[in-house]
Amino acid sequence: MQRTSLSTLGEFGLIDRIAEKFQITNTSTVKGIGDDAAVLRYGDTSLVVTTDLLIEGVHYDLRYVPLKHLGYKAVTVNLSDVCAMNAKPKQITVSIGISNKFYLEAIEEIYEGIRLACVQYGVDLVGGDTSTTKSGSMLSITAIGEATADKIVYRHTANAGDLICVSGDLGGAYAGLQVLEREQHLFDIDPSMTPVLKGYEYIVQRQLKPEARKDVIEMLAGLDILPTAMIDISDGLSSEILHIGTKSGKGAKIYESKIPIADETEAFAKELQLDPNTFALNGGEDYELLFTIKQSDFPKLKNNPDISVIGHITEHAGVFELIADDGTAIALQAQGWKNFAL
Amino acid sequence: MQRTSLSTLGEFGLIDRIAEKFQITNTSTVKGIGDDAAVLRYGDTSLVVTTDLLIEGVHYDLRYVPLKHLGYKAVTVNLSDVCAMNAKPKQITVSIGISNKFYLEAIEEIYEGIRLACVQYGVDLVGGDTSTTKSGSMLSITAIGEATADKIVYRHTANAGDLICVSGDLGGAYAGLQVLEREQHLFDIDPSMTPVLKGYEYIVQRQLKPEARKDVIEMLAGLDILPTAMIDISDGLSSEILHIGTKSGKGAKIYESKIPIADETEAFAKELQLDPNTFALNGGEDYELLFTIKQSDFPKLKNNPDISVIGHITEHAGVFELIADDGTAIALQAQGWKNFAL
Repeated sequence: MQRTSLSTLGEFGLIDRIAEKFQITNTSTVKGIGDDAAVLRYGDTSLVVTTDLLIEGVHYDLRYVPLKHLGYKAVTVNLSDVCAMNAKPKQITVSIGISNKFYLEAIEEIYEGIRLACVQYGVDLVGGDTSTTKSGSMLSITAIGEATADKIVYRHTANAGDLICVSGDLGGAYAGLQVLEREQHLFDIDPSMTPVLKGYEYIVQRQLKPEARKDVIEMLAGLDILPTAMIDISDGLSSEILHIGTKSGKGAKIYESKIPIADETEAFAKELQLDPNTFALNGGEDYELLFTIKQSDFPKLKNNPDISVIGHITEHAGVFELIADDGTAIALQAQGWKNFAL
Repeated sequence: MQRTSLSTLGEFGLIDRIAEKFQITNTSTVKGIGDDAAVLRYGDTSLVVTTDLLIEGVHYDLRYVPLKHLGYKAVTVNLSDVCAMNAKPKQITVSIGISNKFYLEAIEEIYEGIRLACVQYGVDLVGGDTSTTKSGSMLSITAIGEATADKIVYRHTANAGDLICVSGDLGGAYAGLQVLEREQHLFDIDPSMTPVLKGYEYIVQRQLKPEARKDVIEMLAGLDILPTAMIDISDGLSSEILHIGTKSGKGAKIYESKIPIADETEAFAKELQLDPNTFALNGGEDYELLFTIKQSDFPKLKNNPDISVIGHITEHAGVFELIADDGTAIALQAQGWKNFAL
C-alpha cells in the first residue's frame, strides 16, 4: 500500500477527495457534502443535517474548559451550522465517548450544558450513543434543522455586487483562547498561582460559551431579507470569505476598518503587541454569521448595530482582497484550522 | 463533586438517567430517546434518525479487522437500526477521527467500505467531519431513513399472544469473533504462524461483514405484514427480547429448539465445548431482526426459510422464559454488551 501523509492534503483536500467517489441517488437528498449542512427535502419542508466531532486534546482542553461549557459549546457549534443554512435548529443527537476515569457526576455536568443549550435554542435531544474510550473523551453531535424549501441559503450563490455582512464581532474567541492558554501555562509552572481572568471576561466567554446566531436569521426574516449566500465563521473570516467566493465562482473585497472587533479583543491584542485584525481574519471559533445581501436590501440593515457591512463580492473569480486602512490591497489567505497539518 | 462510578449504572442506566432530564418541545419530534432510532414527522413522511459510535480498542481491533470491513460494518450496523423501525435507509453522515499515524490510503480503504455499503443499500453519504485524535481511531455515523408515517414500528407495541420471530440465524457473529481473537492470540505468541480461518468462513464473515436486513422489511411489506414490534439484534437475543417485552409491559416465552443457529456456529461451539444457544442468546452483533406479529399473520410466514418463529408474547409482565429442550423453563437474562462494567 502506498503511504501518503495527510498533511499534504489538509482537511478540505481530504474531504474533496472522498466526496468525489460518492454519488447521490435518493430524491430526498438535495445537497450532500460541501456546505455547512446537508439538505434533504420532504414536500415543502427542507431539513438540514450537520455533524461535528469534538476530541479532547484536539478541540478542547479539560484543564481549563468546564464540563458544562463543553456540553453547551458542543451543541451551539452544530446549531451555528444549521443557522448558517437559514434553517431553525430542531433536533440533536449526542454521542459521547469517555474513559473509565469519568464519574457519573462529570458526565451529568456535560449533559447539563447540553440541556441548557437545548432549552436556550428550543432543540430536542432525540438520541445518541455512549461508549467508553481507551483514553480521553470525545463528543459527536448531529443537528437537524427545518426551513421552508425556498428559504435555504447556500455558500455558492453569492453574486457580484452583493454586500458582505457579518454579525457581532470577530476575533474574541481566539483572544479568549490565548488568555486561557497563557494562564494554564503559568499555572503549570507555578500551581500556587491563581489564573487572572479579570478584565478578560468577554473574550473568555466568547471562547468558552459561543452562541449560535439563531437571533440573526430570525431578525433577517423579520426584515424580509433573504441572504444570497451564508456561512458561519468557525475557521476565521478569511477562510469563510474564500469559501463563499470560491464556491460562487466570484471574488471579494473587504475593508480592514470595517471588521467589527470588540474593545476587549483589541485591548488584549495590543497587550500582546499583535494586530487584532489577525485574530478576526484567522482566529476562528467566533460562530458569527457571514452573509451576502443584494444592494437593494442595504437600507433595511444599515442602522443595525449588530450587523457590519465589511465589503462586497466582485466579478474577479478567485481574487480576494483586504483593503488596509492606508488603502493598500493585501491578498486574503485561508489560515484557518489546519488540524491535519500539525 | 460526588463520584459515582459508571459501572454501578451500566449503559442503559446512564441513558435513562440522562433522558429523564430532557423534554421534547418540537412538534416534528414524534419519538426521542428509547428506541432503535428517533422518529421525526413531516406531513405523511416519517424520518428515523439513529447514530452509533465505534471506538478502536472498544468496538474493533485493527489487528484483525480489515479497514474496508470496518467502514462497511460501521454503516450497516446503523442501517440495521433504521430497518428495525421498518424504515428504508436513505442518508448517512460519517465522522472519522484518526491519529497522525494513518495514511491517506488507509482512510481511503475505510471510505471504500463505506462506499460499498452505500451502493449496496442505496444510501447517500451527505456529510460528516474529519479530525485527528491523540491516539487510536473512531467512527461516528448517523443514519436517516424514511417511511410513511403509519408504517413505523416501535419496540413498545407488542401484544400478548403475538408470535416472536427472528430473521436469519444467530450466534454466528460472536463465534466469528472468538475465532478471530483466538487466531490473533496465537499470532501474538508466535508471529510466524498463519491464522487458520478455513472452515470458519461463514462465522468470520458474520463478524466482519454483517448486513442490515433491509430485505426482510421489504419482504414483510410484500407479504402485507406490519410487525407489532421490532428491534435489531445487536446485544444478543435475550437482551432484545427483554427490551421488547419490558417496553411493551409484557412477558415472553421462547423455545430453545426454535432458535436458528447455523451449522458452522454449532460446530464451532462444540469445538469449544460450549452451548451454541449461549452464543445466540448473549453473543450479539448478529444484526438480525427480532419482531412480533399477530397470530393471524402466521400463515403468510410459516414456510419462509429465512424467518423462525421462536416463541410468543405473554400477559405476564416482566416474566421472560426460555423453554429448554427437556421442557424446563429458565429465566432469560440480559447479558449483552456491558461496556461500562469493564
